[in-house]
Amino acid sequence: MAEHHNSLRSAQTSMANYPEAYDDALRRAAIFDAMSNTHRHAILAQATVLELGAGQIWQKDDTSQDFCLLVSGRLRMQQETSDGLRHIARYVLSGDVFEMPHDLDAEPQIAAAACADSTVLIWSNPVWTSLLAQDVLLSSNTARALTHILRETQTRVRQIATQDVEQRLANAVLGLLDRASQPVKGGLAIDFPIGRKDFADMIGTTQTTVSRIVSTWETKGFLRTGKFKFEVTNIAQLRAYAAGLDRNSPARFANQRKQARLALA
Amino acid sequence: MAEHHNSLRSAQTSMANYPEAYDDALRRAAIFDAMSNTHRHAILAQATVLELGAGQIWQKDDTSQDFCLLVSGRLRMQQETSDGLRHIARYVLSGDVFEMPHDLDAEPQIAAAACADSTVLIWSNPVWTSLLAQDVLLSSNTARALTHILRETQTRVRQIATQDVEQRLANAVLGLLDRASQPVKGGLAIDFPIGRKDFADMIGTTQTTVSRIVSTWETKGFLRTGKFKFEVTNIAQLRAYAAGLDRNSPARFANQRKQARLALA
Repeated sequence: MAEHHNSLRSAQTSMANYPEAYDDALRRAAIFDAMSNTHRHAILAQATVLELGAGQIWQKDDTSQDFCLLVSGRLRMQQETSDGLRHIARYVLSGDVFEMPHDLDAEPQIAAAACADSTVLIWSNPVWTSLLAQDVLLSSNTARALTHILRETQTRVRQIATQDVEQRLANAVLGLLDRASQPVKGGLAIDFPIGRKDFADMIGTTQTTVSRIVSTWETKGFLRTGKFKFEVTNIAQLRAYAAGLDRNSPARFANQRKQARLALA
Repeated sequence: MAEHHNSLRSAQTSMANYPEAYDDALRRAAIFDAMSNTHRHAILAQATVLELGAGQIWQKDDTSQDFCLLVSGRLRMQQETSDGLRHIARYVLSGDVFEMPHDLDAEPQIAAAACADSTVLIWSNPVWTSLLAQDVLLSSNTARALTHILRETQTRVRQIATQDVEQRLANAVLGLLDRASQPVKGGLAIDFPIGRKDFADMIGTTQTTVSRIVSTWETKGFLRTGKFKFEVTNIAQLRAYAAGLDRNSPARFANQRKQARLALA
């Protein structure tokens, strides 16, 4: 996890130096919904900017806690557990907000790994708290954005607790295609580099298992993969897997779930 | 899941009829933090009250979407998947907020099952949205409360994706003891009725597996269980399991994780 830990702090500049550069992307961010330009600029003026090159990893080196907005790029939010497993908590896409908490009791520290060149706006916790306390539009937009992330996260808990690994993988691929895709010949591709190990660490399984399923899907002809590339040529079929429909029989399907739960023991 | 679906709507009354009854509990709720009595009462006046008897299940029967606060009691938020597995998304304790969404695409419907006599305040989505839009203290308190729930939910995703079943169970028991416990002879008990199946449906395993682990813990002498009763007599030992410390060796421990992930396939 030690790709590039070079002096990120020095890359931070005040938002005041970026008056126009990102304005179009920022206007569309959910936390600035229904906000005037003047209003948005006043909030932006209190942010600092952090630029991360693709492959760089940002990890808090102090006890502060930041509220962040990804202006452009893609971030992989990851944690390493005490026994060396990597967990991918979430992929943050441009326009998304996220927290960079300081070390919480017993929680593995969160790191943000840039999957592409990324620009992050940072408000320190005191600054953000004081902005929320005086700005009802920002507060209600933030509450709505958090509700949205919370729903997604609750869905992930349910999927991982009740679905077998093939269905979980289908949902993970579909979730990223829905949020971050680009058209390719005959289908859609996830628009940033992502590999089998990444999916394994999102859905709580091994790379070997992901590879086995991916091979089956490639044989069936609705998925193409390359080095850190995922392209789907038949979304309907992927959706069927994600819904748990592509099975021999419902009975076999329910049984697989029970087997998976038993096997976890 | 069909215990008591009797006419809950008729049990709803306006909050105006409850001017004092719950005021002490409400004053301590996080969304009313730092709020004057007058201010809080104005928000409460827009809520309706729903009383649920222990064992009753509340499920939305319309397309509306509510923002809710549990004034007293305990609720088990549960979903039934298409293949008949029950997933427990969260236990809601008094003072906690929660959403009762209408049917989302492809999401199993959420039901709130009362584990004890419970009183719920309900704001419909339009009412709540309009309150947030004009009340900066309520909005920022809500954003903070949602951040808290989001962190808890993200922790659950990580636990279920990276921990073996014994560690997950220890964390689930500990999490409820931390939030809802009462002293009993020689230890602490979860203060509402909860059984092995409930824990299985929280952590994504079978009742059989939970029973096997519970038996081991009872033999080791730090857990006592009865019919829907969980009492812990040595919290430190439970914490060690929750942290993944009580193992023969770190190597064996890491290996168990990998085995668990492989077994999921």
